[in-house]
Amino acid sequence: MPSKRRLPAAVVLLSGGLDSATTLFIARARGFRCHALLVDYGQRHRRELEAARRVARAAGCPAQVVRLRLPWGGSALTDRRVAVPLGRSTAQMARGIPATYVPARNTLFLSLALGYAETLGATRVFIGANFLDYSGYPDCRPAFYRAFTAVARQGTRTGVEGRAIRIETPLIRLTKTQIIRRGFRLGVPYALTWSCYLGGRRPCGRCDSCRLRAKGFREAGVADPALAA
Amino acid sequence: MPSKRRLPAAVVLLSGGLDSATTLFIARARGFRCHALLVDYGQRHRRELEAARRVARAAGCPAQVVRLRLPWGGSALTDRRVAVPLGRSTAQMARGIPATYVPARNTLFLSLALGYAETLGATRVFIGANFLDYSGYPDCRPAFYRAFTAVARQGTRTGVEGRAIRIETPLIRLTKTQIIRRGFRLGVPYALTWSCYLGGRRPCGRCDSCRLRAKGFREAGVADPALAA
Repeated sequence: MPSKRRLPAAVVLLSGGLDSATTLFIARARGFRCHALLVDYGQRHRRELEAARRVARAAGCPAQVVRLRLPWGGSALTDRRVAVPLGRSTAQMARGIPATYVPARNTLFLSLALGYAETLGATRVFIGANFLDYSGYPDCRPAFYRAFTAVARQGTRTGVEGRAIRIETPLIRLTKTQIIRRGFRLGVPYALTWSCYLGGRRPCGRCDSCRLRAKGFREAGVADPALAA
Repeated sequence: MPSKRRLPAAVVLLSGGLDSATTLFIARARGFRCHALLVDYGQRHRRELEAARRVARAAGCPAQVVRLRLPWGGSALTDRRVAVPLGRSTAQMARGIPATYVPARNTLFLSLALGYAETLGATRVFIGANFLDYSGYPDCRPAFYRAFTAVARQGTRTGVEGRAIRIETPLIRLTKTQIIRRGFRLGVPYALTWSCYLGGRRPCGRCDSCRLRAKGFREAGVADPALAA
């Protein structure tokens, strides 16, 4: 077995939710030495970041946090004056961009991950974006990741030197059910993850994120271990 | 004359240096209601941001600051253990990427500006990148801005809605001399700007940024007002 230091390195954006946790375990299973990157951008609750730290620890990966305050509001995820939509069906979710959209969030996350990856000498950035069972965010679509790949090639030292950092989106065309099934096979500790947009003691069960998660576990035919406690 | 509120809005990335100050005045002259965006990313000195605030004030534009700490080093601009290269000729500068390169910096700046622009309803992001008299940074090349334009189109609400925010690089193919001549015609207060990579009481005159600036003023046949005091 090769020594751990010889494995290629990857930066994995970790939010604390189900998708990014699965992505971390996929990257690890592919043989990457993973560095989790957590972004504290002023989320309305702390549970997400606490979950991300626990998931990274369970995966045995170092976790780096970037803190920034976006001095503008406008999203239900960063601005308490904007309500989180509750009780929407998946058909309703598919119809438009919801109030939980944070302008240019994944562009910002990828730019931080790109800088971190270049500093570490990592060859990949993994992000758990998902196009099928998603909440209508434009920055979860495949075309966005193709565009960002070109940015990584044109805007960095590694790109100029012909060894551009690749953006990996292993979940992009999977359903939530497929993601959960794959995660179970990889031993993802779903009990540690947090998907709810609200920061209550327990998941609300009514926001888009809770509903997509519940649908995924239901269709996968397994109980959500985060709800077992 | 139209009321000030009717003018289209633009976000202008303002660093405190000569190029971004000129860019702000160009955007203003084109009829945009400008919002300056300053990024405090842990620069080794404060002079740049102080200069940016003064320039925004002189232009009559509101200035918004985003603070973040990149928890990785590796650049002479953010890490005091890395030396700023001094005394290089422009031929030497053209030969590679210098130690002042900050991984993915302009990608990060543009992603912040993109999110801010979308929140404000602005139609443009201006950045003072310059490809001719530059220090070898990959994220100052036209191909990078073309790639980021696609990101702005694919990764945001406005892009999906067919009114993507445009990235404007009015200086990209100008020489430093041409930039300075244009700036003088527009009344850019160059006395307020700060280009030096070091944070001394006065510009060092030896870093790449000081040398490119001095060459520009020399070839434009005007004295640098920042050195007059």
